[in-house]
Amino acid sequence: MNTNSWVQDQVLNTNTIPVYVGNLAIGAGQPIIMAGPCAVESEEQMMRIGKAVAAAGAHVLRGGAYKPRTNVQSFQGLGLAGLELLRKTGDALGIPVVTEVVSPADVDLVASYADILQIGSRNMHNYPLLLEVGRTRKPVLLKRGYAATIEEWLAAADYIAAGGNNQIILCERGIRTFSTETRNTFDISAICLAKMKSPYPVIADPSHAAGIPSLVPHLARAAIAAGADGLLIEVHDRPEEALCDGGQALLPEVFRQLVHSVRTITEG
Amino acid sequence: MNTNSWVQDQVLNTNTIPVYVGNLAIGAGQPIIMAGPCAVESEEQMMRIGKAVAAAGAHVLRGGAYKPRTNVQSFQGLGLAGLELLRKTGDALGIPVVTEVVSPADVDLVASYADILQIGSRNMHNYPLLLEVGRTRKPVLLKRGYAATIEEWLAAADYIAAGGNNQIILCERGIRTFSTETRNTFDISAICLAKMKSPYPVIADPSHAAGIPSLVPHLARAAIAAGADGLLIEVHDRPEEALCDGGQALLPEVFRQLVHSVRTITEG
Amino acid sequence: MNTNSWVQDQVLNTNTIPVYVGNLAIGAGQPIIMAGPCAVESEEQMMRIGKAVAAAGAHVLRGGAYKPRTNVQSFQGLGLAGLELLRKTGDALGIPVVTEVVSPADVDLVASYADILQIGSRNMHNYPLLLEVGRTRKPVLLKRGYAATIEEWLAAADYIAAGGNNQIILCERGIRTFSTETRNTFDISAICLAKMKSPYPVIADPSHAAGIPSLVPHLARAAIAAGADGLLIEVHDRPEEALCDGGQALLPEVFRQLVHSVRTITEG
Amino acid sequence: MNTNSWVQDQVLNTNTIPVYVGNLAIGAGQPIIMAGPCAVESEEQMMRIGKAVAAAGAHVLRGGAYKPRTNVQSFQGLGLAGLELLRKTGDALGIPVVTEVVSPADVDLVASYADILQIGSRNMHNYPLLLEVGRTRKPVLLKRGYAATIEEWLAAADYIAAGGNNQIILCERGIRTFSTETRNTFDISAICLAKMKSPYPVIADPSHAAGIPSLVPHLARAAIAAGADGLLIEVHDRPEEALCDGGQALLPEVFRQLVHSVRTITEG
Repeated sequence: MNTNSWVQDQVLNTNTIPVYVGNLAIGAGQPIIMAGPCAVESEEQMMRIGKAVAAAGAHVLRGGAYKPRTNVQSFQGLGLAGLELLRKTGDALGIPVVTEVVSPADVDLVASYADILQIGSRNMHNYPLLLEVGRTRKPVLLKRGYAATIEEWLAAADYIAAGGNNQIILCERGIRTFSTETRNTFDISAICLAKMKSPYPVIADPSHAAGIPSLVPHLARAAIAAGADGLLIEVHDRPEEALCDGGQALLPEVFRQLVHSVRTITEG
Repeated sequence: MNTNSWVQDQVLNTNTIPVYVGNLAIGAGQPIIMAGPCAVESEEQMMRIGKAVAAAGAHVLRGGAYKPRTNVQSFQGLGLAGLELLRKTGDALGIPVVTEVVSPADVDLVASYADILQIGSRNMHNYPLLLEVGRTRKPVLLKRGYAATIEEWLAAADYIAAGGNNQIILCERGIRTFSTETRNTFDISAICLAKMKSPYPVIADPSHAAGIPSLVPHLARAAIAAGADGLLIEVHDRPEEALCDGGQALLPEVFRQLVHSVRTITEG
Repeated sequence: MNTNSWVQDQVLNTNTIPVYVGNLAIGAGQPIIMAGPCAVESEEQMMRIGKAVAAAGAHVLRGGAYKPRTNVQSFQGLGLAGLELLRKTGDALGIPVVTEVVSPADVDLVASYADILQIGSRNMHNYPLLLEVGRTRKPVLLKRGYAATIEEWLAAADYIAAGGNNQIILCERGIRTFSTETRNTFDISAICLAKMKSPYPVIADPSHAAGIPSLVPHLARAAIAAGADGLLIEVHDRPEEALCDGGQALLPEVFRQLVHSVRTITEG
Repeated sequence: MNTNSWVQDQVLNTNTIPVYVGNLAIGAGQPIIMAGPCAVESEEQMMRIGKAVAAAGAHVLRGGAYKPRTNVQSFQGLGLAGLELLRKTGDALGIPVVTEVVSPADVDLVASYADILQIGSRNMHNYPLLLEVGRTRKPVLLKRGYAATIEEWLAAADYIAAGGNNQIILCERGIRTFSTETRNTFDISAICLAKMKSPYPVIADPSHAAGIPSLVPHLARAAIAAGADGLLIEVHDRPEEALCDGGQALLPEVFRQLVHSVRTITEG
């Protein structure tokens, strides 16, 4: 018996319509794993990490070219050069790529390089940006705002759909609560609720939720056990040299074990 | 491969010391399921529900005799009569029983009837009560305060241990956040962190966290996938007639499926 | 014009019934100031600080004999000896005293020494304790639970009133939120809402809310400007030697300025 | 004695550098009142409300032309036509105007009509927008994100200052917490902390914090008593017909009383 189907079909009343990225179906039963570094740093870095995550079973490569950072002095991404490196790596490995867009003016440019456009947590309420990605015909990965209700999250998806683009993938990434032991509080219930209340696939980003590598595989397993359609995982082979969020990245070997462990749940 | 062991041993650095209730080991690898109604209502109700949960695979029977309620007009439990009915049902079914104690003056009485003493979320900071249960030699199930940090939760356990009683089972039951779509926000990371930072087994109460029956099996699966040592689940066969929290209780048949589904994870 | 009356009577629809402590009316228009150290430490300490706060204009002397502490190793108060010292100081200075009670078994004892019984934030949900203070005929100062809604707070007051004691003074002391820049987030709106929804006087404890002395006078002014009926302020003349919460105590001289500044608002 | 100076200078160590809008100094001691409707709706509406708030003592007229709304179906503002009506009203009344800008592409246009550019709470993390307003030479009113820490708020101000524009006015407008009795929890401490940790004037928006008109005057008084440099107040003479947030707007007569009441605090 496929217990994941059991969870999704027999108790939760979900009716997820898959989103397609080429031949890859997100929300069709098999958990889809997106992985890669927080930021694109160099051609060599992308190829090294890209190969490792693809070999471990990732379906999509992630990497940020435009990084929204709290501090204006922090590394803000390689921009266009980053997009080019990400595309090149994805093509070399034969897997699709996902990357964040932060400004309405950049949407067309990013859409010409990426297979999936990511809207980050801090831009969930950026309505001009949502409208603009809604005018493209690329799948959009919409992260939940770190203090947004489920209702507000789905209302943000409506801004994208208003432009005629309903290829939307929701992504739970943790919310801000009184608890400071983790970077955010991973809201596992939100995965179930978003699936109940919308037709969109819902994936989970345990890396940003936890902020601590040792928790990530546990939260990843929990997300899939709760019915998530996939995962977004930060992986870096030299986390101590990472230009962004190295502290929460998994080593490729731990990521490989995570993928294996997650599969035992859905195939249990 | 037992993936639950993998999660607990290879990534999280845990060193859980099992708590024994008779022959039943909590925290020794096999998830322990505690289930039953929110409140003891009558002999007939306890026997009906008790039989159903035992048949479905529950290891421990729960039922409240002293109910801490927000409103002074609400049903506050049957008290001593409730303790007697709970004990009688457990003996008839041959399974141990857990029930809440809310007043230091009642500790000895409750300890004479129950196999496990429960400290509820609203009493996590009730230090005279913690000291008193610490003077008994009964296992104590210590729920996390609904707005307590992990550190405060473990400090509350220290109050119990100060009396020489270190048979402590921690229970995550959701925290209060801005999100109102669920009764509480189930803090899945807390399960992992409490296991990392203490020697105590950690179980999960998805019923109080969700407050919505359809979410409970998903959160239960998630908890076990994250490494929880067991579950505390509210079950009622006539939820619409329940004197307390019927709205979040599972029907026995759904509970039975939950137990089955949870087993596929640990034995996956 | 008395602007405080304007605020309370013309916009908020409040109907506060004063609580009397001897001749002192709390909730009758004049802000009542309760002040003193977190904990009773010694006769000499109480007399020194008691004299200073009385000279600065405090109407009630505070001092803890039973201290609910997060850690079992922390100083837990002098107990009965603390009650005796507090009473002696209040009598010598001719002002009433307020002190916390944490266990139902101690209520009669504490009531025989104190003029006002304080229920602390961590005990707002301790229903056996609330019922017990409701059986006395002493005024009760009921602090809001640090994560309690207004509704739950007023429901806790109902537990006290159920015993026939409606001499209840509510006290806002800050709530737990994502913000960690202050010890708690002082919820100024709660003062107004509690006054609108109940007949009880509402005072404010800016010391526990802020956790930073330099904020206390500002929050105190804000509370009175919003319509609070009084203040509860921690004062210590040797904060670095305090056995409890010295880090948030005001020096007597700063407290004196606070009292003066607060008066300019209500008499403005 | 000016008690407001006392608060700001003697206890908090603040060093506010005033921001000038023409001759109007914000942060120089006198509380500055900005008021008007949530949204510009028509020429007649703006003139009616504009006259009323100016007569009551407002120094700046507010009115939204671009409204970031949770739902894509909600009224999103009159856009350019709204800017023109706002400018025309401000000129007719001889007072400066403040309005929100939501898209980087609109910044130059909005700056050509407005005296102060407002960044709303949902755009506090919109870094391309912050950089763009930083390139103008107009004062910027930067609202705190509804779940942002003080540190993140000041880091957002750094994005504006990075472009050479340090005419920044901070605005506390409430944060999202577990409490749902008010629209947001007004964080009175944040006003003090932002003044301590930055050179910028800090004003308060009690209208969005409360979401309930009867609380607004109380929170306004509290903000000024705590040391705020001004207020932003929503006023509408026909709140039941308002196209946006009518439910929290004050009637002009209540606003007039609020201005009077606030003055008694600073001149007390």
